[in-house]
Amino acid sequence: MILDRDRAMMARAIQLAWRGRYSTHPNPRVGCVIARGNRIVGEGWHERAGEAHAEVRALSRAGDQARGARAYITLEPCSHYGRTPPCAKALIDAGVSQVFAAVRDPNPSVSGRGLDMLREAGIRVHEGLMEQEAARLNPGFMKRMTTGRPWVRLKMAASLDGRTAMASGESQWITGPEARRDVQRLRALSDAVLTGVGTVLADDPSLNVRREEMGDIGDATEPSRQPLRVIADRDARTPSVSRILRGGNVQVFCASSTLATGPAQDLAALGVSLTGVAWKDNGVDVAELLDALGELGINEVLVEAGPTLAGTFIGQNLVDELWLYQAPVFLGSTGRPTAHLPIETMADKIQWTVLDRRQVGEDQRLILARR
Amino acid sequence: MILDRDRAMMARAIQLAWRGRYSTHPNPRVGCVIARGNRIVGEGWHERAGEAHAEVRALSRAGDQARGARAYITLEPCSHYGRTPPCAKALIDAGVSQVFAAVRDPNPSVSGRGLDMLREAGIRVHEGLMEQEAARLNPGFMKRMTTGRPWVRLKMAASLDGRTAMASGESQWITGPEARRDVQRLRALSDAVLTGVGTVLADDPSLNVRREEMGDIGDATEPSRQPLRVIADRDARTPSVSRILRGGNVQVFCASSTLATGPAQDLAALGVSLTGVAWKDNGVDVAELLDALGELGINEVLVEAGPTLAGTFIGQNLVDELWLYQAPVFLGSTGRPTAHLPIETMADKIQWTVLDRRQVGEDQRLILARR
Repeated sequence: MILDRDRAMMARAIQLAWRGRYSTHPNPRVGCVIARGNRIVGEGWHERAGEAHAEVRALSRAGDQARGARAYITLEPCSHYGRTPPCAKALIDAGVSQVFAAVRDPNPSVSGRGLDMLREAGIRVHEGLMEQEAARLNPGFMKRMTTGRPWVRLKMAASLDGRTAMASGESQWITGPEARRDVQRLRALSDAVLTGVGTVLADDPSLNVRREEMGDIGDATEPSRQPLRVIADRDARTPSVSRILRGGNVQVFCASSTLATGPAQDLAALGVSLTGVAWKDNGVDVAELLDALGELGINEVLVEAGPTLAGTFIGQNLVDELWLYQAPVFLGSTGRPTAHLPIETMADKIQWTVLDRRQVGEDQRLILARR
Repeated sequence: MILDRDRAMMARAIQLAWRGRYSTHPNPRVGCVIARGNRIVGEGWHERAGEAHAEVRALSRAGDQARGARAYITLEPCSHYGRTPPCAKALIDAGVSQVFAAVRDPNPSVSGRGLDMLREAGIRVHEGLMEQEAARLNPGFMKRMTTGRPWVRLKMAASLDGRTAMASGESQWITGPEARRDVQRLRALSDAVLTGVGTVLADDPSLNVRREEMGDIGDATEPSRQPLRVIADRDARTPSVSRILRGGNVQVFCASSTLATGPAQDLAALGVSLTGVAWKDNGVDVAELLDALGELGINEVLVEAGPTLAGTFIGQNLVDELWLYQAPVFLGSTGRPTAHLPIETMADKIQWTVLDRRQVGEDQRLILARR
């Protein structure tokens, strides 16, 4: 039977896991609580790939008190020898009597093995406590392990009349400083930020995380790295002086036929990775691009693109979350649309579920998912 | 000195006044409380033009207890013999000792006279208690008395990507039933509903108040009449079979040169009032139209128009409140814009203050005012 105290302990483990939101990638965010009765005797969370897992940290804090205790873990403990020994073994060695695991490891090749190891050692295992909440810690890890593709967040900053820029392309700034700070945090959550070469040529954005603009991140672990910058750029037109190339860690997806050309080789000489993917009349084959990002180990990708690429993602129903920052302004009917998205009839309108809506400075932030 | 109990009594008077929101026009909404100590001995509100004023109703309830009592009135009592004797005289005759008046009568030709009458009779008069809140009861009455023009509310139903219809004109329904019910209540608040002949020809709307669609209106007095339907129609093209003409009470603003034409005379024969106003290249002279509505005694006008007329109102800064119903959908970049509103640079963007934001069914309702 699951008690209120079990839910409280798992909620705490989820809270701990979330501290690693900017730092664990490509690993999942995981938290662990060791408890006796109503008392927590050890807790831990995974901070960075290559460092100790949540369970090992929590057990180390608990010390001898782990014997006979209950362990609450947001994700099934690992069963394999990787950079660290398997956590299932550590739990067995420490002598815990019960393990509550919120979510099974989504990786089909290992899923359930950690729990089996525990059961075989005589530990009582409870699965699925606060499963949904725990799964939301790692939407990209869960999705990539099961589909091969990353979790896709599309970010837009628009006016109340649905414009993202003036006809001239001028767009700085539609939203206020608080919303822009929020976007810095959103980037820091992401393994990769994707844009199109049109945006690179028009706005020359850096698309990096500027820690000083993120503001106070509370008890979160400091970001461990910049997200991979990804450019959809059929003909390798990204200029060598672009801000996005500074600091390296850039992946360009171009046409396969572009790979052997001078522009592509110039970019490669600057340290840019180039991969050939299929292109269609209306742009890059987005599904293939997502497959390629999954192969690169990208769990969560943030799309910060112009209306064309944004429209392709929405039109092909490849957006998991649309983060729409809405400023209380009108930019007028001559402004640029949020997304190039031809729709003929009301029956074909795109319906969103509002997952979250909140005020961010003077702007409103909506998190939307396709209905 | 103003006490908490005075504020509580005036708040009650404002609450009472609001019961007449659908019924007092063209008179203002007024509430009155008669109190002794902390006890209310009489209260009343104005229900309908031609019926008793709030003060008379409250005094009648209070009876003999009005002598020596305090009266709280949301608007300065009238001093003139109109359809009813002056309320200032009724207060004097009843023997109240103090009068709290939230707002002076905005009509320059009588403003202050009612309060003077009270003072001359030895009654202690307190002005301005909860003045802003009381003024908001009658934004149109206040504005028309001082500027000659009605309060302008512009209603829009749009998608999150800023579209009000498909390219074909199809627009039913963007918003849900709760939002449409809310619009019925908004119409019932209004003395007049204004649209353009383009909307009449495209959608054939009735633009009337359908009481059964308003739902439960709580303690509000039942609507007393349909709002005046107003059509901006330069060439008197409104078809004689239009739904908007049913039930009468229609005002057409056309070009002066149209008045003598057959189509205008056909409309006149159906009981439609026609008035000639100036027209420019981009449509009716909206400022002149508002002056004309003011002369007709219209306090609050609701604009339910297509992108052209809406754009003119916004572009000329003639909107007092924009009521924007936002549905959680995308209609796509081929859809029609919220308003025809050419803006060149970010510096010229239109900035709104969000006066109110609330969920109405699945839609979001924003009430916006120009910053």
